[in-house]
Amino acid sequence: MTAPALTAAPAAPAAPAAPAAPAPLAADAFFVATAAPLLDRYCGVRGLSRHLADGLAPEDCVVQTMEDVSPTKWHLAHTTWFWETFVLAEHAPGYRAFHPRYAYLFNSYYVQAGERHCRDRRGYLSRPTVAEVLDYRAHVDAAMERLLGDDARAESIRELLEVGLHHEQQHQELMLTDLKHVFAVNPLRPVYRDAAPLAPGDAVALAWIGVAGGIHEVGHDGDGFSFDNEGPRHRVLVPDFEIASRLVTCGEWLGFIADGGYRRPELWLSLGWAEVQAKALAEPFYWEPAADAGGDGARANRQITTLSGVGDLDPDAPVCHVSYFEADAFARWVGARLPTEFEWETAAATVPVDGHFVEGGHLHPVPARGAAGDLVQMYGDVWQWTRSSYDPYPGYAPAPGALGEYNGKFMCGQYVLRGASCATSRSHARRTYRNFFPPGAAWQFTGLRLARDV
Amino acid sequence: MTAPALTAAPAAPAAPAAPAAPAPLAADAFFVATAAPLLDRYCGVRGLSRHLADGLAPEDCVVQTMEDVSPTKWHLAHTTWFWETFVLAEHAPGYRAFHPRYAYLFNSYYVQAGERHCRDRRGYLSRPTVAEVLDYRAHVDAAMERLLGDDARAESIRELLEVGLHHEQQHQELMLTDLKHVFAVNPLRPVYRDAAPLAPGDAVALAWIGVAGGIHEVGHDGDGFSFDNEGPRHRVLVPDFEIASRLVTCGEWLGFIADGGYRRPELWLSLGWAEVQAKALAEPFYWEPAADAGGDGARANRQITTLSGVGDLDPDAPVCHVSYFEADAFARWVGARLPTEFEWETAAATVPVDGHFVEGGHLHPVPARGAAGDLVQMYGDVWQWTRSSYDPYPGYAPAPGALGEYNGKFMCGQYVLRGASCATSRSHARRTYRNFFPPGAAWQFTGLRLARDV
Amino acid sequence: MTAPALTAAPAAPAAPAAPAAPAPLAADAFFVATAAPLLDRYCGVRGLSRHLADGLAPEDCVVQTMEDVSPTKWHLAHTTWFWETFVLAEHAPGYRAFHPRYAYLFNSYYVQAGERHCRDRRGYLSRPTVAEVLDYRAHVDAAMERLLGDDARAESIRELLEVGLHHEQQHQELMLTDLKHVFAVNPLRPVYRDAAPLAPGDAVALAWIGVAGGIHEVGHDGDGFSFDNEGPRHRVLVPDFEIASRLVTCGEWLGFIADGGYRRPELWLSLGWAEVQAKALAEPFYWEPAADAGGDGARANRQITTLSGVGDLDPDAPVCHVSYFEADAFARWVGARLPTEFEWETAAATVPVDGHFVEGGHLHPVPARGAAGDLVQMYGDVWQWTRSSYDPYPGYAPAPGALGEYNGKFMCGQYVLRGASCATSRSHARRTYRNFFPPGAAWQFTGLRLARDV
Amino acid sequence: MTAPALTAAPAAPAAPAAPAAPAPLAADAFFVATAAPLLDRYCGVRGLSRHLADGLAPEDCVVQTMEDVSPTKWHLAHTTWFWETFVLAEHAPGYRAFHPRYAYLFNSYYVQAGERHCRDRRGYLSRPTVAEVLDYRAHVDAAMERLLGDDARAESIRELLEVGLHHEQQHQELMLTDLKHVFAVNPLRPVYRDAAPLAPGDAVALAWIGVAGGIHEVGHDGDGFSFDNEGPRHRVLVPDFEIASRLVTCGEWLGFIADGGYRRPELWLSLGWAEVQAKALAEPFYWEPAADAGGDGARANRQITTLSGVGDLDPDAPVCHVSYFEADAFARWVGARLPTEFEWETAAATVPVDGHFVEGGHLHPVPARGAAGDLVQMYGDVWQWTRSSYDPYPGYAPAPGALGEYNGKFMCGQYVLRGASCATSRSHARRTYRNFFPPGAAWQFTGLRLARDV
Repeated sequence: MTAPALTAAPAAPAAPAAPAAPAPLAADAFFVATAAPLLDRYCGVRGLSRHLADGLAPEDCVVQTMEDVSPTKWHLAHTTWFWETFVLAEHAPGYRAFHPRYAYLFNSYYVQAGERHCRDRRGYLSRPTVAEVLDYRAHVDAAMERLLGDDARAESIRELLEVGLHHEQQHQELMLTDLKHVFAVNPLRPVYRDAAPLAPGDAVALAWIGVAGGIHEVGHDGDGFSFDNEGPRHRVLVPDFEIASRLVTCGEWLGFIADGGYRRPELWLSLGWAEVQAKALAEPFYWEPAADAGGDGARANRQITTLSGVGDLDPDAPVCHVSYFEADAFARWVGARLPTEFEWETAAATVPVDGHFVEGGHLHPVPARGAAGDLVQMYGDVWQWTRSSYDPYPGYAPAPGALGEYNGKFMCGQYVLRGASCATSRSHARRTYRNFFPPGAAWQFTGLRLARDV
Repeated sequence: MTAPALTAAPAAPAAPAAPAAPAPLAADAFFVATAAPLLDRYCGVRGLSRHLADGLAPEDCVVQTMEDVSPTKWHLAHTTWFWETFVLAEHAPGYRAFHPRYAYLFNSYYVQAGERHCRDRRGYLSRPTVAEVLDYRAHVDAAMERLLGDDARAESIRELLEVGLHHEQQHQELMLTDLKHVFAVNPLRPVYRDAAPLAPGDAVALAWIGVAGGIHEVGHDGDGFSFDNEGPRHRVLVPDFEIASRLVTCGEWLGFIADGGYRRPELWLSLGWAEVQAKALAEPFYWEPAADAGGDGARANRQITTLSGVGDLDPDAPVCHVSYFEADAFARWVGARLPTEFEWETAAATVPVDGHFVEGGHLHPVPARGAAGDLVQMYGDVWQWTRSSYDPYPGYAPAPGALGEYNGKFMCGQYVLRGASCATSRSHARRTYRNFFPPGAAWQFTGLRLARDV
Repeated sequence: MTAPALTAAPAAPAAPAAPAAPAPLAADAFFVATAAPLLDRYCGVRGLSRHLADGLAPEDCVVQTMEDVSPTKWHLAHTTWFWETFVLAEHAPGYRAFHPRYAYLFNSYYVQAGERHCRDRRGYLSRPTVAEVLDYRAHVDAAMERLLGDDARAESIRELLEVGLHHEQQHQELMLTDLKHVFAVNPLRPVYRDAAPLAPGDAVALAWIGVAGGIHEVGHDGDGFSFDNEGPRHRVLVPDFEIASRLVTCGEWLGFIADGGYRRPELWLSLGWAEVQAKALAEPFYWEPAADAGGDGARANRQITTLSGVGDLDPDAPVCHVSYFEADAFARWVGARLPTEFEWETAAATVPVDGHFVEGGHLHPVPARGAAGDLVQMYGDVWQWTRSSYDPYPGYAPAPGALGEYNGKFMCGQYVLRGASCATSRSHARRTYRNFFPPGAAWQFTGLRLARDV
Repeated sequence: MTAPALTAAPAAPAAPAAPAAPAPLAADAFFVATAAPLLDRYCGVRGLSRHLADGLAPEDCVVQTMEDVSPTKWHLAHTTWFWETFVLAEHAPGYRAFHPRYAYLFNSYYVQAGERHCRDRRGYLSRPTVAEVLDYRAHVDAAMERLLGDDARAESIRELLEVGLHHEQQHQELMLTDLKHVFAVNPLRPVYRDAAPLAPGDAVALAWIGVAGGIHEVGHDGDGFSFDNEGPRHRVLVPDFEIASRLVTCGEWLGFIADGGYRRPELWLSLGWAEVQAKALAEPFYWEPAADAGGDGARANRQITTLSGVGDLDPDAPVCHVSYFEADAFARWVGARLPTEFEWETAAATVPVDGHFVEGGHLHPVPARGAAGDLVQMYGDVWQWTRSSYDPYPGYAPAPGALGEYNGKFMCGQYVLRGASCATSRSHARRTYRNFFPPGAAWQFTGLRLARDV
């Protein structure tokens, strides 16, 4: 009997062809100004989602490496389900759902939109495949383009369309942070994309900027889009305070570590200290000792995982992937504090919405540049923890129906972050934006800026 | 500004192209007789592993839906690592490992072979991709073919090679049972492969076959391959007993359910009853009420998930995916018991090693056929739980080194199963084979045959 | 051989002598006005702690029925350790600790005061016995009496002594709530003490009381004792609002249940709904269907466990043992909301600190009495959940040293409650008091008062 | 106003009166020969249970320090419930249960005897008090004495009475092992009772004793009492083997530790190694480094907790509180193995049932004494792990009804131990006794004797 032939052996590949590290992200190509027609903006946002997955293997799009992380495939499908459920099903006569079970699979947490697949099992789903999900996107895009082609109709549901666009932008940021985790826990340490080159420059010293208090209006003023949690606009009494001119840096964080920051319970909130002990925390998420470092030398010789691979720590870059607990302990160590969200919003009134966003293609926070004393890095780089619990504004009421679950039901056990990050789209950032995460979360691009009383 | 073009929308696909249900498995094409040259056998076994993955999407090969389940990709790589580590690294001069981290990623549980990736995180690995794993297989196959091309050298390590072949065959069965779970937990209920058509026939009544006891030799006699746990061959005292002529059927199991089998603690071992309550068990794994069944009607109207999709229950087919706890409770309900492994081995002396194996392409147990009173279904269809704890035979000693961890260290907390299943290769089955699983395991093709005292 | 004699059998006791239900608590006998000498106040507070344990079996003082609950014995010892550690060790020259290991056993959470026994294992300690703990109390009391006998010295540490007194009063309330749990989970349903008789009266209708907003000073003004978390006093901007004249009642809560309150996710915060599902919540803690109730009748026919045993629900009594999640959902159902802590403090400015405290001996909230439209039940009966996260006031800094851990490190993940309860000492209540618990806690005497926007 | 008087302070007690270490146990006073009248035996057994609790504080009788441990109070009540339920309720006309809820509280695991309190919450019950449980005992004892006073009636239910006596003896051993845990986890390290003095003597060298194999009858022969799991008596084929003349000692165990026994996975079963890692095991339960030992010196300088307090390790005493996993690993390290239960029973045929039982009052295993080469310590000191899984004997069938749950339903996941321990009553030991525990259990008096193939 003859043996069945095995596939022909390749000619001596001592190592497999490593997947080429893809070129830097070209998010800027998808940027569409807010003033553009809704159809253009739709195409821009949807195109960026698709571009984020370019170059990924199907395998990369499936796995869920912790409950907070959703597979890329899920993000691509869930954002599509959002358009299908809240726009097409309501406003596109005759629209037929792409697949009868996708509403079950890709509803995230909208209880009023029906039963849904369990969040911690998103990584159990091999099907639909990535290709099938892209078909789903194409099907919905075609219907959306038809709908948006009718300007009057589009205008009549402008508010809803804006929610859909900003919803998809939020998930674009999550796609990047979730992929970062997927690649970071893999012992092979894959690279997502090369970073765009960075112009050299000098470190900027931290300065304290005084801000006058008083009764201020905070919250969104209705000019342009906002999520419901940014309103109602209302008056608050803000004290006089000082705010740091730039973000806290990795170099400063090394000082915190060297001074026993992770070993001194008196610096921490009680729940924070419990996490330090339970997880044996000794440095920010995604930091690790450099291979050749040992003992105390490790403190000054660390490596850091980014979406562009493992590299040396830049002491001038903003510290990133720190939890509220860490940010709060660091501020206490310094003798300062985090700003309230209203102090932040007050200070931000003086600067434009500008910074290192996803369009920069760097996918990691970059060192501050500019004249000492300028208020910089208010947007982009990292989301900035505030000391404000994520509470409803006075008079806040969520929208009726399932979309009302978007923000309101999460106003418990979380803290407000302000600004934006290196993974945020430029057109997604604004001064009144209230991002929020639980105090132990660190897998997002989260950092801090100090404040202090006068 | 003009919007970036989205991918052209497909022309009105009301539903995505469902992945075509693949043709039945053609495992028989890879069958190589035990007497064939080692190279042929190697090619046959390796070829079947590869064939099992044909038609799967890369996404199907990545997910891990419970800790017991390993991704298809992992099985393809781990079996390759086994050849690389235990054969090539030791016996192929100049062999270079394919990748420096694969030993870490694909060592399963061999502590003496070095550090390894955590079992319950196999589903976290998007890389290496399936294609990279297939490259790995090709690299190792090429080296193995060179090694096996030298007959004298191959013969000198025949025993080790046999372990490798049978090891890979074990994982082939696991690939099928693990894929079954991956597909079954997916709400879309994908189909792995169509079942090969089945010849019609009549149900066979159960008969009791008397077997004379006495002092018998059990265990492997050294003629051909065996795992170390099948020896040393030794004498045991077997009582006179009776054994059922065929396996317990789904129809008989429906009677157990109808009589309150899952609600009567007196039928169960204490640990088994705890599982019934903790998991709210009411029927075998992969059974479910038919969509249109309600109330008591559900008992007679059940559906069952197979590798060929969801279908009606065949009351004449052997019951499958029952745990030891369930098998034991059923036997108590009937007023019988499970056989000991030595009773089973004694009874099996009278029949050839034949039955419905993976080569049949059915991938599910099939009804017994034959004359009433014949001892049938001793091999194939389902592994048969015995009442024997998985203990070492007198004088058993594991091999030295890492390969000694293959069997010996698991001799605690498990029960012996005999026979083989519809997912086992014909050349892998033998009379003295001792399969073993913990008493609560049900995701394997496990069923039962009754015995009783005389 | 003769059998050893067993203890003489009692003459036909068909049932054991049930422990007599003790007389009502006489907490009033231990009331000492705030203006009294410190020694008198010390004796009053310490005496009440001891009185709370009168009539308990030693067995009652040992068990820990959930992590939140501490044994009575532990409370008696921990409060004593507090005096020993923070007063005697620092300010009583020559004082010798009673036992070298008690600091380890009875330190609760003061990391800076040294290693301590794990909180969730307090119920593992049979020793020291209750009698030994009472000896410990006597030892410390003797030393404290010597110290306090010196008026000048006592005055010099007045602030510290005040902390000790109020600390012990906090634990007195916990002793009662913890014993309530110990008795409630016991299938024998023991009675702690009879309730003092209650004067009859008529139910009071709920009225809405308008309160004018503006810039108000909140926080403690320094006149008398306060905990550090009540300061610094500062200005806040309070909107115009309306507040309910009395607490929400059990009768009103029955309406919430009847209207599907526990089955409608849209009424709940996301974390709250998760608790409803995980714990299958359908009514407040300590409520249960009356034995003869069935189906929907159960809603109107409920029993409730109190420290005086199981009894009928009084629809006019304030609802009690509801979590923040429940209070928030109820308020949403009504179309109202919870007050902020600053609204509450503003409204409270108009009423004296009076109500049903522990001195009343009722140990359960009682129905409101008075003229409709009066603002009543602001103190006593139940602690009132506010919608305010437990955040530090602007400029807040904890005291240096271990005592600084008293409040500050818990300012995360909790909500502020205002007022006081039926288990609080009258001299412990004040307008600026900030009690705090996590949003899921329900084993305290916690209820709610509604507010709404104008 | 005058302060309420505090209890008079004691005159300067620098330390509390430590509870006097009670005198040695006087279990021998309760010994009654098996041939004595049933009433005498009943009184002897019941009297010993009561004596075991003499000198304990009520607090000692309440706590449950891990799920395996039951409170002393529970043991006292459960054994009483056993007589009430299985004897009095069936055979004492007119008997009235002492309390309607005790059947719920004190049924251990007899599903057919009705609903029962959850095992892991036995430590939540402060009531009934110890005194009430003693009243319960007196009530049942009085009824039992009336019943047993009628010789003919007693004889007619002799078998049932024997079960009750041996059941209570089992729980006497558990009372001691459970109290040991309660005291050992207490940082104050209370002493249960002083140990009876021990005669000095010389260490005995280990010798190997050859035993001839063949077909042997094993299991109970019906002469006197046995539990149902000891039958049916049946023939087994035993190989020739050698058995160690005495138990493994602490000194020998120190050698295992010194040779890395707890750090070498190749010595362990897979499940055992998982426990070593999960619990960071490095020595037997209840061992700890002596206070002044450091580094490797710790190995030779250990302390051990006994029921008589913390003391030095005696290298000649049998090792105790080792799990099956540890015993198995030690035997593998030595190059020997554990005996099967049938080898043990065969070897034991040559020696009388004698040894250090609870009547000796030592409450800890003692060094072997005698001539080298004698087979000693077969009973008493420690239960001896065998390599036999706890399986039913051929033809085994449990009794009908709730009492049938006594043994049969636990025949899964456990190993057989033979012999008896220093906490076993002399009249409770016999050659065919099959004790059983899960392989990870170590809180019992469990040790090992080696065997090896010839």
